[in-house]
Amino acid sequence: MIDRLTIVGVGLLGGSVAQGARAAHLARTIVGVGRDRQRMAAAVSDGTLDSVTTDLAEGVRGADVVLLAAPVLAIEGLLESAWPALEREAVITDVGSTKANIVGVAERLHAESPRAFVGSHPMAGSNLAGYAVARPDLFRDATVVVTPTETSEARAVKRVTELWESLGARVTTLDPSAHDRAVAAISHLPHLVAMALVDTVARAAPAAFDVAARGFKDTTRIAASDPQMWQEIFFANREALGATLAEFRAALTDLERLVNAGDATAVRDAIARIRTVRESLR
Amino acid sequence: MIDRLTIVGVGLLGGSVAQGARAAHLARTIVGVGRDRQRMAAAVSDGTLDSVTTDLAEGVRGADVVLLAAPVLAIEGLLESAWPALEREAVITDVGSTKANIVGVAERLHAESPRAFVGSHPMAGSNLAGYAVARPDLFRDATVVVTPTETSEARAVKRVTELWESLGARVTTLDPSAHDRAVAAISHLPHLVAMALVDTVARAAPAAFDVAARGFKDTTRIAASDPQMWQEIFFANREALGATLAEFRAALTDLERLVNAGDATAVRDAIARIRTVRESLR
Repeated sequence: MIDRLTIVGVGLLGGSVAQGARAAHLARTIVGVGRDRQRMAAAVSDGTLDSVTTDLAEGVRGADVVLLAAPVLAIEGLLESAWPALEREAVITDVGSTKANIVGVAERLHAESPRAFVGSHPMAGSNLAGYAVARPDLFRDATVVVTPTETSEARAVKRVTELWESLGARVTTLDPSAHDRAVAAISHLPHLVAMALVDTVARAAPAAFDVAARGFKDTTRIAASDPQMWQEIFFANREALGATLAEFRAALTDLERLVNAGDATAVRDAIARIRTVRESLR
Repeated sequence: MIDRLTIVGVGLLGGSVAQGARAAHLARTIVGVGRDRQRMAAAVSDGTLDSVTTDLAEGVRGADVVLLAAPVLAIEGLLESAWPALEREAVITDVGSTKANIVGVAERLHAESPRAFVGSHPMAGSNLAGYAVARPDLFRDATVVVTPTETSEARAVKRVTELWESLGARVTTLDPSAHDRAVAAISHLPHLVAMALVDTVARAAPAAFDVAARGFKDTTRIAASDPQMWQEIFFANREALGATLAEFRAALTDLERLVNAGDATAVRDAIARIRTVRESLR
């Protein structure tokens, strides 16, 4: 049981953690922190939050668990600002889509003034944003990557893991850099590619949108994502994204070469191999 | 009302046309033609087909509407084989995913022995195949592209358009080459790209599949497609696919350059512009 859970950023992810924690009675008190009190009013009136504040230090003071649920770049600044006000016994985590940068900031702060931080990345969400689309079961059956390092306190890893599991998630542990390479390939690259697909049709064949079927719509759903959030993710994970983009270009060129070589068996074999891999994903 | 509707190829598309035509009482008699009588047994026993044959000439003889529902390359051969047995008054169409090659064969045959062919491409389907996944409402609210040329008989265009509309589809008319360029951009490119995305992770970061979320799964659903069908589509539309691939590479490189240049406003503007385009698709 958490005595006081403070959620900084009451949007889709923060709001869903708050709703899920409320529904499962995981915390006695849930406090919301945001820049705009009005925007948090709905989460108070629906009974999800007990109180809200626009003062970060006031919000985290006395909390035994703190969740930073802001865009990636903002989390770095929030760590800096919140650190002096965090209780020594508090466990702190976040929802940032990249981890090496955020964990790096936390480790630097920890070296000066120890606090029990461990990074999290819930692989859930939506191309929509804001508290209006939050839901208590957002993390049910989702994967959450938790990214401890050598300096992480064991109690923080345990408590953060339990929090996500209590919300119905499956927790996987990865080193922050391994996490960043994995999400570059499985999430950031597909987002950039989906955006480029939409842009290709918009630039070269806009009339073709008239005949778009489910395949195109599914493939490019994530091209309708939040500009601020994805600019920050692309910047924060630029290096790993560049590496996976090079691998993607090679894979695409290999397929194109097979098609142009006119070897039907080789093309069918390649498609069959890829289909088998894709079908193995639940 | 169609007196005798012959469907060559009783799989997902042909089977769905047969089921839809039966449900809407569009034809007095529905005949199935296939290479394997056993595979068509289900469509007879469920009352969709009145009779089946493995003899193409026998199947199309006496039919007033003939639908060729086979993979792209097979349709060219079926046109050649069926042509001498087609009634002069019959209207013939197909479901091929590329049109210039198929319409070209039909026009050559038509010049020697006139028959009323007009090409169709229903933008519906699935990554699954076979009669088992056919359904009578597959074409409801789907787009079907009909591709008449200067030599098309008006009655064929009218009858084929009415057939698709009776099955609930929205019919769009395009020149065969314009059709092929449009589907290269909106369908064939996304399939090749989705395959390359899966292949990238399989080759460079297979452990990342463990953290794949809905975004990756949606984006790559069409990578689990039928190898034979897609090999044939890529071959049949190689030229237009090559052109749209070049445009895609340029769009992807432009996005990557914006990210690497570190101009946050420019990246957000690009993502916002693309999001607006994508959101305008229903």
